[in-house]
Amino acid sequence: MSHRAIGIFDSGVGGLTVLQEVLQTLPDEELNYLGDTARVPYGTKSPSTVIRYSLEAAEFLCRHGAKALVVACNTASSVAVPALEDRFQVPVIGVIEPGALRAVTLSRSGRIGVIGTEATVTSGAYTQAIHRLRPDARVFSAICPLFVPLAEEGWVNHPVTRMVAEEYLAPLLEQKIDTLVLGCTHYPLLKPALRALVGEEVCLVDSAEETARALAGMLQNQELQRAEGPGGVQFFVTDVPDRFERVGGGFLGSALTQVQRVRLD
Amino acid sequence: MSHRAIGIFDSGVGGLTVLQEVLQTLPDEELNYLGDTARVPYGTKSPSTVIRYSLEAAEFLCRHGAKALVVACNTASSVAVPALEDRFQVPVIGVIEPGALRAVTLSRSGRIGVIGTEATVTSGAYTQAIHRLRPDARVFSAICPLFVPLAEEGWVNHPVTRMVAEEYLAPLLEQKIDTLVLGCTHYPLLKPALRALVGEEVCLVDSAEETARALAGMLQNQELQRAEGPGGVQFFVTDVPDRFERVGGGFLGSALTQVQRVRLD
Repeated sequence: MSHRAIGIFDSGVGGLTVLQEVLQTLPDEELNYLGDTARVPYGTKSPSTVIRYSLEAAEFLCRHGAKALVVACNTASSVAVPALEDRFQVPVIGVIEPGALRAVTLSRSGRIGVIGTEATVTSGAYTQAIHRLRPDARVFSAICPLFVPLAEEGWVNHPVTRMVAEEYLAPLLEQKIDTLVLGCTHYPLLKPALRALVGEEVCLVDSAEETARALAGMLQNQELQRAEGPGGVQFFVTDVPDRFERVGGGFLGSALTQVQRVRLD
Repeated sequence: MSHRAIGIFDSGVGGLTVLQEVLQTLPDEELNYLGDTARVPYGTKSPSTVIRYSLEAAEFLCRHGAKALVVACNTASSVAVPALEDRFQVPVIGVIEPGALRAVTLSRSGRIGVIGTEATVTSGAYTQAIHRLRPDARVFSAICPLFVPLAEEGWVNHPVTRMVAEEYLAPLLEQKIDTLVLGCTHYPLLKPALRALVGEEVCLVDSAEETARALAGMLQNQELQRAEGPGGVQFFVTDVPDRFERVGGGFLGSALTQVQRVRLD
């Protein structure tokens, strides 16, 4: 049992899709969510920069007593988890392994598509995680740089989004994938447009639910869960809260309040 | 006369459109270009964060002996010029005043459109600069968040870009503007798509050329120009150089080499 909080971080609002699942799965836990909004996005940055930012974010959360760290960002999960595990004593959960597990569980043909930021796709993290679970899987990846700004613009089912999705996903659909990993926490917002494009036959995998489940299992195994609720969330951001509150509401599905600005660098 | 370098900074590659004009106008000068690629973009961030980043960038350039500073970023120009002038002893040139001057010179009807990032448009800097030069001008602004990622994706005349432009610019075209300020250093790359949409009647104003002219005039007035050439450019970035070199080539119109990584924070 531990009354300490769970620390969750992302480059900005995207990780709120993970937070939402964690809130539902673990309503008794105290959560500290940190969005590095002064340096967002991470997906176009290099591994060394993303690792540095992730260490700084985790440092902040650990100073605030984190008993576990959730990396609610695919880019950071794909490059920074080993560095975080080396530096900090608390368990670290990223979104890649849970997403890969879900994809492998759902796919019948083993032909799996992965879409993500430049950094996530280039890292090869999903491909490796999928192959560890199912060595004969065929993984086809595509970088989708415009999906993050489209989701932040709120154009979740706009004709422009559908046209962009058509262009980005064409090579994957040609490969007859039966499962598509939404390898960026922004992408679940675009599900309506993606679903319309890929049809009912292709499973859309969003890591959030599986990550929350993995977190719950880990807390139980390590006897770190909180004895009694109710829990709650505190929000921290590195730029002024306005834009985070405004855009983040759409990601969390409810209003964001009491967001504090902090400095990491 | 001064042999020292001119310091130019931007959040990333966008300012290379300004650098290109400066190189043509002032071929004898030594230039230091700094792209803050580890924290790009600035356009979605708050004034206080953009001011802090701008002061750190200018500090770096002044440590490298800058005799003048060029803020080759509309967002930083729109919020940080007074803070830079307060802190540093060297002359500071932003892109807003030159862009406003050019717009006022070209517009016959005084109905001027301005497009830019959220931070630039919200600051009202262009509207104020235009009104200082022509108090009876009517200024109509629009935030165009997708233009930066579209330019970086290289979709400069893609059907998607044309569709996005149509949506963003419709309210300005309804106002019968005769001049459109491209209030972000990324936007000149989208000129083909924008020109096709607005027609030949609307003047497209890109601050780069006018900024280079203002810089040349200032160097001459203050007797800061370099006695003899040839000049040259040194590039500095805050993330690894790969992406800057790859994407930046399209902005500068020639290959980028010998880019050094530095830290500001």
